[in-house]
Amino acid sequence: MSSPSAYVPGLEGIIGAQTAISLVDGANGRLIYQGYVIADLAQEMSFEEVAYLLWHGNLPTRSELDGLALELAGSRTLTEATTKALAALPLDTDPMDVLRSCVSVQGVEHRLSGPTVPLAIHATASFPTILAMFHRRRQGLEPIQPRSDLGHAANYLYMLNGQESSPEAVRALNTYLVLLADHGMNASTFTARVIASTESDLTSSLVGAIGALKGPAHGGAPSAVIDQLELIGTADKAETWMREARKRNARFMGFGHRVYRVYDPRARILKEMCRQMNPKFYELASKVEEVALAILHEEHPERPQSVNVEFYSAGVLQAIGLPKEFFTPTFAVSRVAGWSAHVLEQAGHNRIIRPQSEYIGPEPRKPVPLAERG
Amino acid sequence: MSSPSAYVPGLEGIIGAQTAISLVDGANGRLIYQGYVIADLAQEMSFEEVAYLLWHGNLPTRSELDGLALELAGSRTLTEATTKALAALPLDTDPMDVLRSCVSVQGVEHRLSGPTVPLAIHATASFPTILAMFHRRRQGLEPIQPRSDLGHAANYLYMLNGQESSPEAVRALNTYLVLLADHGMNASTFTARVIASTESDLTSSLVGAIGALKGPAHGGAPSAVIDQLELIGTADKAETWMREARKRNARFMGFGHRVYRVYDPRARILKEMCRQMNPKFYELASKVEEVALAILHEEHPERPQSVNVEFYSAGVLQAIGLPKEFFTPTFAVSRVAGWSAHVLEQAGHNRIIRPQSEYIGPEPRKPVPLAERG
Repeated sequence: MSSPSAYVPGLEGIIGAQTAISLVDGANGRLIYQGYVIADLAQEMSFEEVAYLLWHGNLPTRSELDGLALELAGSRTLTEATTKALAALPLDTDPMDVLRSCVSVQGVEHRLSGPTVPLAIHATASFPTILAMFHRRRQGLEPIQPRSDLGHAANYLYMLNGQESSPEAVRALNTYLVLLADHGMNASTFTARVIASTESDLTSSLVGAIGALKGPAHGGAPSAVIDQLELIGTADKAETWMREARKRNARFMGFGHRVYRVYDPRARILKEMCRQMNPKFYELASKVEEVALAILHEEHPERPQSVNVEFYSAGVLQAIGLPKEFFTPTFAVSRVAGWSAHVLEQAGHNRIIRPQSEYIGPEPRKPVPLAERG
Repeated sequence: MSSPSAYVPGLEGIIGAQTAISLVDGANGRLIYQGYVIADLAQEMSFEEVAYLLWHGNLPTRSELDGLALELAGSRTLTEATTKALAALPLDTDPMDVLRSCVSVQGVEHRLSGPTVPLAIHATASFPTILAMFHRRRQGLEPIQPRSDLGHAANYLYMLNGQESSPEAVRALNTYLVLLADHGMNASTFTARVIASTESDLTSSLVGAIGALKGPAHGGAPSAVIDQLELIGTADKAETWMREARKRNARFMGFGHRVYRVYDPRARILKEMCRQMNPKFYELASKVEEVALAILHEEHPERPQSVNVEFYSAGVLQAIGLPKEFFTPTFAVSRVAGWSAHVLEQAGHNRIIRPQSEYIGPEPRKPVPLAERG
């Protein structure tokens, strides 16, 4: 046993895993999936191709891609147990809790089996169905069965809305799903890997990751961007509102990232999509971005500042027609590809992730018997 | 951002958190909860007292303990959604998957709320009910409603069996629950803390922790001890069987722990309980322990070796009448106290646990278009 080094809060700067799946190259503002720069994938590839890339380490041939599409389409139906569990949940349940619970039920097994690509495909296929079924139910609408002739993004929108979406909406959602599919060692991916390191199953890892993504310090606050923009109201009020907000020590939502020191490459792509698809949102948001960066720079000229991936994705997801409570769950619809790739990679390493702790409690003493505790 | 140090597989020797909740003093073979040595707590305290200690940092007064007992007893009933979800699960579902799914459903909420002691009490109260309800159902028996006049251990056994257990069985289960309630920075506790560090909710942390505990490299293999003892058969066959097994490179189940360099203090207490309660198991197990330690010492005289907590707890839980598929879930019935204490502690720190990763994938290159991939 090596002797421990000093405690680093948040494990910042500590390497938690080696991975070939993605590289967040913060210094150069690049995100790389298995050796491909995100900007080269975002507009060209389907989510299915990128999921294949993350799981296998190489892009699929046409027939491999067709095979994956077929398997995904064949795995979209929920089990009877999941259907019943979903129907039992209160209508006002947080959709992230619906996802956590139903992914757990969808993945129950009789006997532990290790993670495999087919299991990753099954899980990935189920996320949109779970969310769409719940969305329909809470609106009092009939559930829409998945269609096997539609791609992953198109089928998700179809199940949510009961009709096919425009090619632009499908394309935008596909790009969003590609952009968010993996991102180095974030908290939910790390959670998935810690669980996998105990030789547990894929479902357990994914359920843990969903719980971590739910946290507002991770993926759980994208609707906060919209909430803040709604409070600001219009572009001409941005400067006044934001300077007032800062006096109250309010945070600007959608800014800052621990890793990127220059512009987040995903935010750049989403910003342009937002400009095209959601001009009203864009007008306000780009003004808010400009003002926020100016204020943040005044306060800390030494700190690089930029919008994070949540800022303009809010505008894109809104334009696609997603309700804001579905922003974080839709993040999970994308990230499940990366989570399962990391679980597969971790399972091949087979070493439990188990850091030490530093005890800061009292020195050992004898307990006082209950009768004498007053 | 600090520059990363070299990658340490499994984060071994890295400090993942500071905690006052427990200290695994491996060098001296001591386990300490909030300043109390486990040997001073195991036979004297109720699980309720120890849970209070872990959550609050001090032992309860009589009236505080009565208050906790009342709150626990009042939180034992499952929600309608959980009852329905449980009824929907296949009868042959792994009880750990039942627990993961039903704890998730039991904790669904409309709006994110941070972890609190009352929420920890609610969750802790629900674990035995979920397991007992499922146990009754898979046996085709009527569910037994919880009784508010019984303590935590007694009520769990009552709900499982439909009748009150002997004071000896209740006492033994209580001691088991006290011994397993916390254990420093193990993989499931670390999982719970990583999830909590994103400012997610208690339920998400607990559900992730259950998934990590399920892994055979963590808590998921206690029944493997019984399986191996059953294969060995009788004490006189132990030596021959085990030397043969070693030639096939088979592992001895229930041996070794990364932290304890002398005897695990929990194993010592459980061994004595096992001797009193389960003499048949003890006769075989103590012989197997003796032979295994001799063989392991021959192979690696430099390595300290001893049985881990799972070895004799198998004999104790068997004597209490628990089916072996319920060993790991019953571990969770105990550990939920520690998990929630760690979540409460982590939530007070509010710093996301997010290590880095080291990229070992290919250098960036241009993707080949699908049509040219052959």
